[in-house]
Amino acid sequence: MESVTNQSIFEEIASIVGKENAFLLDVDKLKYGHDETEDYSFMPDLVVKPHTPEQISNILKKCNEHLIPVTPRGGGTGLSGGALPTKNGVVISMERFNNILSIDELNLQATVEPGVITEVFQNAVKEKGLFYPPDPSSKGTCFLGGNLAENAGGPKAVKYGVTRDYVINMEVVLPSGEIIWTGANVLKNSTGYNLTQLMCGSEGTLGIVTKIVFKLRPFPKKDVTLLAPFTSNEEACRAIAAIFKAGVSPSGMEFMERDAIEKTQKYLLEHMGQKVNIELPDNIKAHLLIELDGNDDEVLMNEAEVILNVLEDFDTGEILFADNQSRKDELWKLRRNVSPAVNAYSLTKAEDVVVPRGNLPALIVFIKEVGAKYGFNSVCYGHAGDGNLHINIMKENLSDAYWNNEVNEGIREIFEEVVALGGTLSGEHGIGIAKRPYMQMALGDVNLNLMRGIKKVFDPNGILNPDKIF
Amino acid sequence: MESVTNQSIFEEIASIVGKENAFLLDVDKLKYGHDETEDYSFMPDLVVKPHTPEQISNILKKCNEHLIPVTPRGGGTGLSGGALPTKNGVVISMERFNNILSIDELNLQATVEPGVITEVFQNAVKEKGLFYPPDPSSKGTCFLGGNLAENAGGPKAVKYGVTRDYVINMEVVLPSGEIIWTGANVLKNSTGYNLTQLMCGSEGTLGIVTKIVFKLRPFPKKDVTLLAPFTSNEEACRAIAAIFKAGVSPSGMEFMERDAIEKTQKYLLEHMGQKVNIELPDNIKAHLLIELDGNDDEVLMNEAEVILNVLEDFDTGEILFADNQSRKDELWKLRRNVSPAVNAYSLTKAEDVVVPRGNLPALIVFIKEVGAKYGFNSVCYGHAGDGNLHINIMKENLSDAYWNNEVNEGIREIFEEVVALGGTLSGEHGIGIAKRPYMQMALGDVNLNLMRGIKKVFDPNGILNPDKIF
Repeated sequence: MESVTNQSIFEEIASIVGKENAFLLDVDKLKYGHDETEDYSFMPDLVVKPHTPEQISNILKKCNEHLIPVTPRGGGTGLSGGALPTKNGVVISMERFNNILSIDELNLQATVEPGVITEVFQNAVKEKGLFYPPDPSSKGTCFLGGNLAENAGGPKAVKYGVTRDYVINMEVVLPSGEIIWTGANVLKNSTGYNLTQLMCGSEGTLGIVTKIVFKLRPFPKKDVTLLAPFTSNEEACRAIAAIFKAGVSPSGMEFMERDAIEKTQKYLLEHMGQKVNIELPDNIKAHLLIELDGNDDEVLMNEAEVILNVLEDFDTGEILFADNQSRKDELWKLRRNVSPAVNAYSLTKAEDVVVPRGNLPALIVFIKEVGAKYGFNSVCYGHAGDGNLHINIMKENLSDAYWNNEVNEGIREIFEEVVALGGTLSGEHGIGIAKRPYMQMALGDVNLNLMRGIKKVFDPNGILNPDKIF
Repeated sequence: MESVTNQSIFEEIASIVGKENAFLLDVDKLKYGHDETEDYSFMPDLVVKPHTPEQISNILKKCNEHLIPVTPRGGGTGLSGGALPTKNGVVISMERFNNILSIDELNLQATVEPGVITEVFQNAVKEKGLFYPPDPSSKGTCFLGGNLAENAGGPKAVKYGVTRDYVINMEVVLPSGEIIWTGANVLKNSTGYNLTQLMCGSEGTLGIVTKIVFKLRPFPKKDVTLLAPFTSNEEACRAIAAIFKAGVSPSGMEFMERDAIEKTQKYLLEHMGQKVNIELPDNIKAHLLIELDGNDDEVLMNEAEVILNVLEDFDTGEILFADNQSRKDELWKLRRNVSPAVNAYSLTKAEDVVVPRGNLPALIVFIKEVGAKYGFNSVCYGHAGDGNLHINIMKENLSDAYWNNEVNEGIREIFEEVVALGGTLSGEHGIGIAKRPYMQMALGDVNLNLMRGIKKVFDPNGILNPDKIF
């Protein structure tokens, strides 16, 4: 690569977006060098904030000509380092692409720019009685474009699917500067290779998305929330598969081990002054937070009844039925704050493994065994209805050397078990730089070479988001 | 390409599967040279019926070495010519890959070989209370592998999605002979590029699928079917968007114009001796066949009520409520037989366009205008709830020359309008060879070059299913 310290090229690129949207000083660039992944930090040479696809096209042409690395960036909430400028160069912040361009009530579709905050979009469509289900815990700050890049999920995915299940078309600027639409604004499409699905989850390595067309659903009118305590992690995880087997399709099926709840209660009290009352008798080791939604109270009550019947065969504590909105909000706020809470009390490595849900009980036993073997604590929680478990491994008072070496050996053992159980490395956070060392274990050389080949078709000079995925 | 008449190479390939599974005589190969697309027919040099991935691997290695074209073939029900050996060479018939390998009731997943007939699979999972929704009209003879290759849909897609929404992993033999799994057996996956979704709908041009893992759903316990007659095609199509806008999600929303019903009634009577009574007063020009499903009779009745209320604003005839299984079966049999019926009375060109469903009324008016301009009749029907319209253009007594030239100009005009309406060429039949001439109009050079680049990554010598898509 050509030297990326060439000041005159960066000034040319800056002129594409105007001085007020280009940043060369460290003090301005600092926050664009990290996200929410461990303590990674890299300093870009230049940060630009374009606001049209044509500006991005011109930036990419210039960077391609001079072989300057380009890292696209959304809300900066990533958990795998997908938006980090590991090779410095230019960070393209998408924050000015923040318009909802249309909400088409006739066709239940919306066209948005990728810098729209997920929750802002959800609220806008909800006002029209419509529903955009993907809702990562960071929904209040993450961008739809980042959700697309990592194929984000969230608690509703168990019933309604992940980001890729809602995107039907997108406008993309390729590294060559060419601007394409990947598909059409239709609900089904068998017209050539599925470029839309190839882009979704490609972590900004193939092109920069500048418009997204999502399909929407009618907003479900009713919901109920249950909190079920269990005497062991395995027992809770076994109950999940049993509930699905009974024919119920919950709109939320979240697992939280005891530690997750205790740390989050403490965090909410200390950081937000909010007390969430949940009884935690000594014998209770894990909880399932279960939501049902639909349009009919009676149907929901019948489904809740089915779940309660299933749970009679398990070793549970008293099941809490959240019967008013403020109690529901409180429980979901607790769940959404597990990640920040765990991170508030220790540096962590956040894993995002996924297995067939029937294999969760075996996995969770294995994780704790590995923790015991290597001497680390972990907090497990997540979208267990999908088989998607977040494992936050705590540094606490481990030495830096141990954290950076032995602990990674333990993580490798966990990933090996995940793959042996029919699962894979990431359910919704992506690979980024954090999981890259483990990719070969999950996919093997032939798959990785296919992916590298695809990368080369889109980005022959490898300027776009280098070092990510493989 | 090397001469493909080299008898000794074909004999070597034949020896991989054994003589009883290799066919060199025209009389045996004839049926592998055509499918259900117009009157296309091509003669392969060799037809083989392997039954293990390793056999396919060895065949592909040999063909790659000698640059012999290979065409994988499923049930032979394709409507775009995706399985036709246009360059002769070897046809690999997947008919011996016909085992359902496992139905995992704990994880609601099944692993199948691609030569399993779709309806056989549906029935097998239904016996366990599970549901595999994609059901193309040809479900009684088509293969799951073919459904995967073309990303097939069917009437349930409007509520439950198409084939791609159910496939989570597959085993694929690459043209190099290497055997990979594309993903993992999980419900969500953000682990590298989505090779599973790239393979799905790639029409057998990237690899040969030898195992498929599908996710399943609980089987809905109840359904109701309505048949609503309208005084015009546009009125019926307008009603579709209105029904969805009212917040109902039907599990079937099929459009049939009057001609489709009349021809199918005649066909069923003449070919199957079955009389389907549907009143067709002179003022009735189109019907919607609407299905609702779920687990609760009362909810279904409420939803049917919502639909009836919506339809009060439209110009309808008397709405038929199918209140017993045999009447429902009869109506769906009618719908499933529109395609064979239309084809029984004339050579046709079958288009499979898809638009945002709110644009269907404009499209259908346009199609009839083009027909009037070019002097051809068309029968329109299909999965209109998805915006997916099948247009069967009838040759009847048009001359061969006119059929092969002027009529294609008319089709081009229809496709241009489809793209202008935000739609695309194929919703569920694929591009194959039949729609290939129109791809540039729908996608443009940049997209097509990306697809060609991807093809080259998987199949550098271009041996696999040549001439398809682009």
